Amino acid sequence: MLSEFNLIERYFTRAPKPAGPVALGVGDDCALLRPFPGMQLAISTDMLVEGRHFLPAADPYKLAHKCLAVNLSDLAAMGARPLAFTLAFALPAAEPTWLAAFSAGLFHLADQYGCELIGGDTTKGPLNICITVFGELPHAQALRRDAAQIGDDIWISGSLGDARLALAGYRDELKLTDAQFADAMVRMHTPTPRIKLGLALRDIAHAAIDISDGLAGDLGHILQRSGVGATLEIDSLPAGPVLATQSTTLQRNFTLTGGDDYELCFTAAPAQRAAVLVAGRLAATPVTRVGRIEADTGLRLIDAQGHPVSIALTSFDHFRTP
Amino acid sequence: MLSEFNLIERYFTRAPKPAGPVALGVGDDCALLRPFPGMQLAISTDMLVEGRHFLPAADPYKLAHKCLAVNLSDLAAMGARPLAFTLAFALPAAEPTWLAAFSAGLFHLADQYGCELIGGDTTKGPLNICITVFGELPHAQALRRDAAQIGDDIWISGSLGDARLALAGYRDELKLTDAQFADAMVRMHTPTPRIKLGLALRDIAHAAIDISDGLAGDLGHILQRSGVGATLEIDSLPAGPVLATQSTTLQRNFTLTGGDDYELCFTAAPAQRAAVLVAGRLAATPVTRVGRIEADTGLRLIDAQGHPVSIALTSFDHFRTP
Repeated sequence: MLSEFNLIERYFTRAPKPAGPVALGVGDDCALLRPFPGMQLAISTDMLVEGRHFLPAADPYKLAHKCLAVNLSDLAAMGARPLAFTLAFALPAAEPTWLAAFSAGLFHLADQYGCELIGGDTTKGPLNICITVFGELPHAQALRRDAAQIGDDIWISGSLGDARLALAGYRDELKLTDAQFADAMVRMHTPTPRIKLGLALRDIAHAAIDISDGLAGDLGHILQRSGVGATLEIDSLPAGPVLATQSTTLQRNFTLTGGDDYELCFTAAPAQRAAVLVAGRLAATPVTRVGRIEADTGLRLIDAQGHPVSIALTSFDHFRTP
Repeated sequence: MLSEFNLIERYFTRAPKPAGPVALGVGDDCALLRPFPGMQLAISTDMLVEGRHFLPAADPYKLAHKCLAVNLSDLAAMGARPLAFTLAFALPAAEPTWLAAFSAGLFHLADQYGCELIGGDTTKGPLNICITVFGELPHAQALRRDAAQIGDDIWISGSLGDARLALAGYRDELKLTDAQFADAMVRMHTPTPRIKLGLALRDIAHAAIDISDGLAGDLGHILQRSGVGATLEIDSLPAGPVLATQSTTLQRNFTLTGGDDYELCFTAAPAQRAAVLVAGRLAATPVTRVGRIEADTGLRLIDAQGHPVSIALTSFDHFRTP
């Protein structure tokens, strides 16, 4: 039987890299980070609950990927470079095969971004995974939600809606081929945090947010915090490759309100259009211009001909009964 | 019905103090901290689960206190000054009375230590509270677990065992008067993080740990990490005022292995005895010398006459079946 201490030592303890920002890693009362002069520390925390964010039978390797990816995505949306993270989790039991796969998935993604696990907590309980992530960025360069300017273009990274399409597949809301379902599930279970794009946008973009609850709702946070409004051209929203094979109605709905894609929505002055495209190329991430920030508050939708489109807008709320 | 966003805004959002280390608080993808030149950041995370760490009917005001206190206690054990914390929690439902009491208890304790809530996450699920806390301390002044020196005195802050006594009361393991049970419950439900003592010990102590799982196990971490052993004089362990009215056997057991008191166990050179006592007075926290660090590994117990005492040593392990 694995004890709490063996569990941490066996699966989650590695020596920190000597030249990095981690002065003391896993194993003491606290971890110690050495901040770099002139840099700020960006901090975000996300909790994933079994039955809410993932299914009880979720593959532990992919689950670990997703738990860390959604946190890294918050760093990306600030333009921060990942440094380290803590992991607290409740587990029904300490199962070696589950833990080995979970820690492998966790470190595989962490190593892609040089992000060190520096501490955490484990306890017995219904499966619940809470990660807190730390990144750094130069003073006053953060891509904040309250920084959108009237006249800014609105951009989206990558594509939207395939994660929502996978959910529709799980729920039997529509018929997908096996290949379509498999492709959509990759987007749902192993999202790519847009770290490189966030870094490339530091000097270019004004406001940014990651799309976790659906574009309409998440862009709404930018609009509200910046005291502005927006018009989106709904048919220019980049649908994921699987969603692109579906009806226009479904494409409009799922690109606008489907969550879980973890793409970035950001705003930048029209003078920066070429720079945004270069940033996208440097980050190997497509970027698509989808609308404009305006003085009139609220969110308006138009089609490719400029005609108003009306869609019931809802954003995911964890406390709303489905 | 409260939405997730209203919930955060109504109960958990306050403006950060302008001159402090928080550059951006609750409400964006990340919070931003301004680290101070020459300082390190100490980080710790703890997760509390209903039915494991607290009862389903737990008073939300006290529950919030405890969740933050156990995290602050980790900062105390490093000698760090609290700066800020994040809160992620899963709630079965968004109940306004529960949330109001929880946030009041949280901010009451946070304000005592100037510790700002800078972000978090809320979701629906079995009640689970995960706090990550940030503190600062000068480079190379941390009270680390691996820093005990042969010949060091071993010290304990405050008193031990009353939280374990409250648990015994809940479990009907023994009879307590109503007044005794009430006093013991205060120790269990609203522990005092020894922040002031930790700060006062920075230049005085070598190693430190907070006692969450029981002295024997927690001191064991210091011994293992420092590559040393220790002898404890068991009858000098400071029993809590309620425990002090119980049998010697119970006092020995509960001071040595009872958890949840969140006192500090620390080591310091004998030349620092007067300085430790002054630090205790400055922090208004009693400190008691209870043993010595030795070259021989392992933990030995002696009574007041110096005779060996044998007690089955167990430490709390979340994955052990009770």
